[in-house]
Amino acid sequence: MSRAPLIIALETHDIRFPTSQELDGSDAMNPDPDYSAAYVVLRTDGGVDGHGFAFTIGRGNDVQTAAIAALEPFVVGRRPDDLGALYKEMVHDSQLRWLGPEKGVMHMAISAVVNALWDLKAKLEGKPLWQLLSEMSPEELVDLVDFRYLSDALTPGEALQILRRAEPGRAERAADLRANGYAAYTTSPGWLGYDDDKLRRLCREAIAAGFTQIKLKVGADLDDDLRRMRIAREVCGPGFRIAIDANQRWDVGAAITWVNALREYDPYWIEEPTSPDDVLGHATVARALAPIKVATGEHVQNRVVFKQMLQAGSMSIVQLDSARVGGVNENIAILLLAAKFGVPVCPHAGGVGLCELVQHLAMFDYVAVSGSRQDRVIEYVDHLHEHFVDPVVVKNGRYQAPDAPGFSAAMRPESISAHTFPGGRVWAGGEVEEGAA
Amino acid sequence: MSRAPLIIALETHDIRFPTSQELDGSDAMNPDPDYSAAYVVLRTDGGVDGHGFAFTIGRGNDVQTAAIAALEPFVVGRRPDDLGALYKEMVHDSQLRWLGPEKGVMHMAISAVVNALWDLKAKLEGKPLWQLLSEMSPEELVDLVDFRYLSDALTPGEALQILRRAEPGRAERAADLRANGYAAYTTSPGWLGYDDDKLRRLCREAIAAGFTQIKLKVGADLDDDLRRMRIAREVCGPGFRIAIDANQRWDVGAAITWVNALREYDPYWIEEPTSPDDVLGHATVARALAPIKVATGEHVQNRVVFKQMLQAGSMSIVQLDSARVGGVNENIAILLLAAKFGVPVCPHAGGVGLCELVQHLAMFDYVAVSGSRQDRVIEYVDHLHEHFVDPVVVKNGRYQAPDAPGFSAAMRPESISAHTFPGGRVWAGGEVEEGAA
Repeated sequence: MSRAPLIIALETHDIRFPTSQELDGSDAMNPDPDYSAAYVVLRTDGGVDGHGFAFTIGRGNDVQTAAIAALEPFVVGRRPDDLGALYKEMVHDSQLRWLGPEKGVMHMAISAVVNALWDLKAKLEGKPLWQLLSEMSPEELVDLVDFRYLSDALTPGEALQILRRAEPGRAERAADLRANGYAAYTTSPGWLGYDDDKLRRLCREAIAAGFTQIKLKVGADLDDDLRRMRIAREVCGPGFRIAIDANQRWDVGAAITWVNALREYDPYWIEEPTSPDDVLGHATVARALAPIKVATGEHVQNRVVFKQMLQAGSMSIVQLDSARVGGVNENIAILLLAAKFGVPVCPHAGGVGLCELVQHLAMFDYVAVSGSRQDRVIEYVDHLHEHFVDPVVVKNGRYQAPDAPGFSAAMRPESISAHTFPGGRVWAGGEVEEGAA
Repeated sequence: MSRAPLIIALETHDIRFPTSQELDGSDAMNPDPDYSAAYVVLRTDGGVDGHGFAFTIGRGNDVQTAAIAALEPFVVGRRPDDLGALYKEMVHDSQLRWLGPEKGVMHMAISAVVNALWDLKAKLEGKPLWQLLSEMSPEELVDLVDFRYLSDALTPGEALQILRRAEPGRAERAADLRANGYAAYTTSPGWLGYDDDKLRRLCREAIAAGFTQIKLKVGADLDDDLRRMRIAREVCGPGFRIAIDANQRWDVGAAITWVNALREYDPYWIEEPTSPDDVLGHATVARALAPIKVATGEHVQNRVVFKQMLQAGSMSIVQLDSARVGGVNENIAILLLAAKFGVPVCPHAGGVGLCELVQHLAMFDYVAVSGSRQDRVIEYVDHLHEHFVDPVVVKNGRYQAPDAPGFSAAMRPESISAHTFPGGRVWAGGEVEEGAA
């Protein structure tokens, strides 16, 4: 690569979709989300831009956007050469660090900017991000990671070993991905706002579409959950994997009681049974509910909490999120931790553009980190993909390996302008009913 | 009380002090803080205002201020009657919750607004906050707490028992506080930026001023720390409590090694040895270093992490912070957890106005929760108090019980206007050298 272009501007957009009108995305904790993106574009003097975003569910997307704007001094005037160094500069800035540290709004802002830098870098290299990462040397990958607070569980030396172990089969696995894709599961049947007929129909459609796992939201009403699980199990048949997701609804004791009541319908995993901060609570739940697996991660704030959950046996499925921890770099740390502890990664997706992003991380994991697709599936939700320039392609229940250069993060310009809050056409033009946002 | 007045406006101020110029506040992680307040005023139609703030150390204070402004719809048009309900509405808002949950910028914003509501309520009742809280019934206090995610460690019934157990001696302890105050310790001698002569002089001054404990920042350079600890121990004499504070500088193994090297100088507690998110790491450090105590809390994000640290034996000193968790309400939960586990609370203070706030919480704890001052001290740093309408009064090493109605949170109007960033006199008028903020 010739010298990378200079980043000359950081541009933000507050983008919101009025999803609360359709009850898409409704669960026990989030009854009426308006899926939103605090969106960032890094403009360069070379004509190629990097795109990224933090996903939120409506109110507060303006705060998230302001946090991204506060990172402008870290990237404008810089080149996307050493993304390990740029990432660490942002995370370690002593004054900004006080606002977390490494959690919440400020950390999600770093995530958006880091991911935009990777989108830019992958475009400049002319490769989809999963391929760009998969072709880096173990040493280069280790340099991207911030090992602070990890050394009692994972050292740089151990990370190198993991990556070197996976080196021999890289080309073969990349070819396999291009030929066969990566398994997906679908959450589309399981939103709480849907009636039984819709649930039944969507379960049938999921099976017909080739999915081998679905997920149901639970936790609002036990009788409803028993009925919905029974219906799903009837339609899907025994042995079909049905995961359930409580979205942090319960205390530790309630989680155990509730899931035990659903046990007769053979849930595959229980997702977010309680607070994402509760390492010890998740461990208690996991011990009580085994062999039902405990899955969590979409709200786990950073690598330090993932580390502990793996140390304590709190999770048997790592659900990393592309845009909550510190972007690609911190997710490499999380993939390495998962590989060290031998726990499969099944990324969180859905929302706005999360499917587009996480497919790259899961595919990189397969090619260059864990080397395995055993018990690994990427979440798939069939909403809002039409707003992206390079939307995911899911065929016969499998994500197809992206070809286009970049991180698949760019939204279509007309979608950005129409959904800009509050001035865009969708919000200002009377298309949204009273009550949303 | 007659009907509470209506809140008619939420006003924010981005206030910053150029403290980095003097190296006040410098430690191993925060070399050049500009102590700042994202400040909020709740205006009412009754002429009485409520004041609150989140403390930051410079960059990002604008983001913090924007987050506070996003809470306007929760308080404008409301009356400060039921502060349990108002607090829970903000914390449980499903869309804003996504930005945490209950951590980072959005949670600190809730803290600022909740504390401003308490400042307002206490002024309306004509009492200092510690007294207002100390005169509430156990049932009223329990209603202020959000027990979600706590029930595996503390139930509402257990909280009631704790509060009822402390009821009999309330009046006596309040009188004791008014007569004798509450013990303080001072961090002023221990900042990393000070030379040995200044350290020696400030240690002597601390003893002369009546303090029975000091604290030294450590973690940047072991040789320096050995020399500084030796000097402090020489000046203070054997038996005098010298705490040390690493401000999250180390990984778990390094924390153990470093503090063991300082053990000959008898450190009383090691504060923030590693990531504030690392429940298991702190527990490992605590086991390895006993009988040296482990203290943490100023960056512990919420009651769920405090709960686990108490469950796991990660901390033997609870350093709650007035403005990081969800304000007074969540701090009541933390005081109750500490009482349940029998661990003393020694609040974090310093910064801007943190001394002013935490004194109320520590005094309330003594009167109505733990009922004890055994091994309990409030941090004291002698900076920036002159900017407050009702600054703390520390005499002979003891905080004097505040008399003025409210939460002591209000800054002087002229201090607000002079330090407003970037337009205030201090910043715009050329009083600040190049480089700060």
